[in-house]
Formats: sequence, structure tokens, C-alpha cells
Amino acid sequence: MKEIMAIVRMNMINQTRKALTEVGVSSMTANDALGRGAGLVDMSLLKGAEQGYEEAISQLGQSNRLIPKRMIIIVSKDKHVDKIVKTIIKVNQTGKPGDGKIFVLPVADSISVRTAEDGDSTLDDL
Amino acid sequence: MKEIMAIVRMNMINQTRKALTEVGVSSMTANDALGRGAGLVDMSLLKGAEQGYEEAISQLGQSNRLIPKRMIIIVSKDKHVDKIVKTIIKVNQTGKPGDGKIFVLPVADSISVRTAEDGDSTLDDL
Amino acid sequence: MKEIMAIVRMNMINQTRKALTEVGVSSMTANDALGRGAGLVDMSLLKGAEQGYEEAISQLGQSNRLIPKRMIIIVSKDKHVDKIVKTIIKVNQTGKPGDGKIFVLPVADSISVRTAEDGDSTLDDL
Repeated sequence: MKEIMAIVRMNMINQTRKALTEVGVSSMTANDALGRGAGLVDMSLLKGAEQGYEEAISQLGQSNRLIPKRMIIIVSKDKHVDKIVKTIIKVNQTGKPGDGKIFVLPVADSISVRTAEDGDSTLDDL
Repeated sequence: MKEIMAIVRMNMINQTRKALTEVGVSSMTANDALGRGAGLVDMSLLKGAEQGYEEAISQLGQSNRLIPKRMIIIVSKDKHVDKIVKTIIKVNQTGKPGDGKIFVLPVADSISVRTAEDGDSTLDDL
Repeated sequence: MKEIMAIVRMNMINQTRKALTEVGVSSMTANDALGRGAGLVDMSLLKGAEQGYEEAISQLGQSNRLIPKRMIIIVSKDKHVDKIVKTIIKVNQTGKPGDGKIFVLPVADSISVRTAEDGDSTLDDL
């Protein structure tokens, strides 16, 4: 099983949730988050900072504020990871910087608190 | 070592924290989260959505709102995972949908910022 | 690739973010969190609780409140983990309890929503 952790635009959470429900994902968790992706970094400033220019470093501090994002966490069976990732991309892809990132992490086990049951059967079947 | 990520009812966070402290867990992190589990999905609506009925899809959008939950994260030695999972279940199990889910993820390392020490010795001994 | 999850003092988030940017980390996510580390637990109270003294248990409940922290999540190439961990320690280490904890988790994949590209090339090069 895998954890799919997606960082998406703040205003995309409802559409993402809806699209995931439509492909059969019924369990998910969402969090507020502040994020910043590579696309928002001015590389010339970064290069200046590497060379030790105080001014560039201070501008970096100002121009790269973290911006509000939403984090969605879904734990899925291995065989459903691809479908879920594609669904998230389909809804969130505008082609502009800030579309977000999806990370896939290995999960050792999933346990239902209600039944104390564990394993793949505690996860959605899409 | 493992990360134990538990999604529980909002009003259970203090009792869960207390029960974990009593079994010897002194380090934990808690987060607000919005969640939804399989138990809250009306499967007939879902089936309608799969068949493409617009109405069912729009109802899905309404009836499956994410509800406020709490996420608790504990990183523990492998040998303590079972005890921690059982403690969380004991406190949170009502037998009704919404009791929550526990996920166990592999962790490669744990580092104490104060001592820069890493490994199992940075984690609680229960 | 690895997820680096750092729990640090609330007022250290901007300095940490700045230091990470200066070593070339352009993508990160930050979250509010409530945390508690081992250093904040009064072990004599804990021992009393183990022995079943009601009074000690109730004091545990009071004296070990979770305190506001910040959680920073960075996903990095394997070869950059050490540099990132050292940067976080350098900025956050005061030597006093509450400096925080860093956890390193294995990551199976990283996907850019904008390009649908996956793998190491979606992550920062420091």
C-alpha cells in the first residue's frame, strides 16, 4: 500500500475531492499547508545568494514567501496509485507554476479503528 | 522505526494524548485535518455517479463533505508499534463509522535537533 | 528520494525557510502542528502513573499539554538529505529541550502536476 500526498492550489480542494470520489476514493484527509515550489524561485537571485551577495540573500528572504496550499493525503492499494495520481493531475494541471506536487510513500500497514482489522481490506477498492 | 499516523475524531485528541502518555509515549505531534472515511459514503450514490448520472454526482459533491478530524503523528521503535496502535484503538473505538484510521509508515531515521544524535535512541522507550 | 519532516519551534520557521533557500532548497511545505517532545515530560510523574496513582495520572494530563510547533516537509534526492538535515539543525539548535526532531522517510516517487513528469528530476538540485 502507498500514501499519496498531494500539494495543490488552495481553491482546487473541492474539485479534487469530487474527482477522487467519482473514481471511487472514499477515504481521504486534507490539511492546510504553506508551500513553495521550484517554479517560484528566481534563479538569478539564488545564484547571487550562492556567491554570497548579502543583498541577493535578503531579497531571497522576501521574494520567496510560502503561499497557502492544501495538502491531500490518500492511502491506497498499490494497484490504484496510478489511477489516483492521474486523477489529481487531470483536475489540477493548468501548466503554470504552482500546480503542485504529488509524493508517493510506502505504507507498511493500515488499521481500521472501528474494526481493529488491518491490511489491504481496510482500503478503498476503486 | 515507524511513523504511526492516526486520524481520529476531533473530540478524542485529549483522551488519546493522555492514554499515549500513560503507556510511555512522550513525543507526539498533532494536526488539524479534514477527513472522510469509507463509512460515510452512500454507495448507491457512488454507483449512480459511476454510471454517469449527473444528479448522483452532484449529490456526491454535497453529501460527502470532509469533516474536521485530528491527525496524530508518533514516530516509534519497531517493537512499540503494536502497543501504540492498540492504545489508540482502545481509546477511539466506538464501533460507529468515523472512528478513524491508523497508518504505519517505514521511517529511515530520526534525528534530535538539540543533540544532533540520530537513530533509535532518539525515540521513546515504552 | 526521501521525505524530511522537521518539527521545529514556531518562531523558527522563517529562519529555517531562509537557510534552506540559501542552500538551494526551493520546494517545501509548512504546517501548523502541536507537539511535545520527551524533554517536556516529568519522568517522576510518569513513573507514578505507571504505578497507578490516580493523582499522578491527572497531573500528567495537565502538565504535558501539546504546544504549538511548526512542521516543515521537504522531499529531496537521497544525496541531499544530509545537507538539509544539517542546515535545519544549524538554524534550530539552542541546546534546550524543545529544539525539535527531524524524521527521514523513504519516498517511492515524486510527480510534478504541471508537467506530469516523475522521478528525481522533479526535485531540487542543491
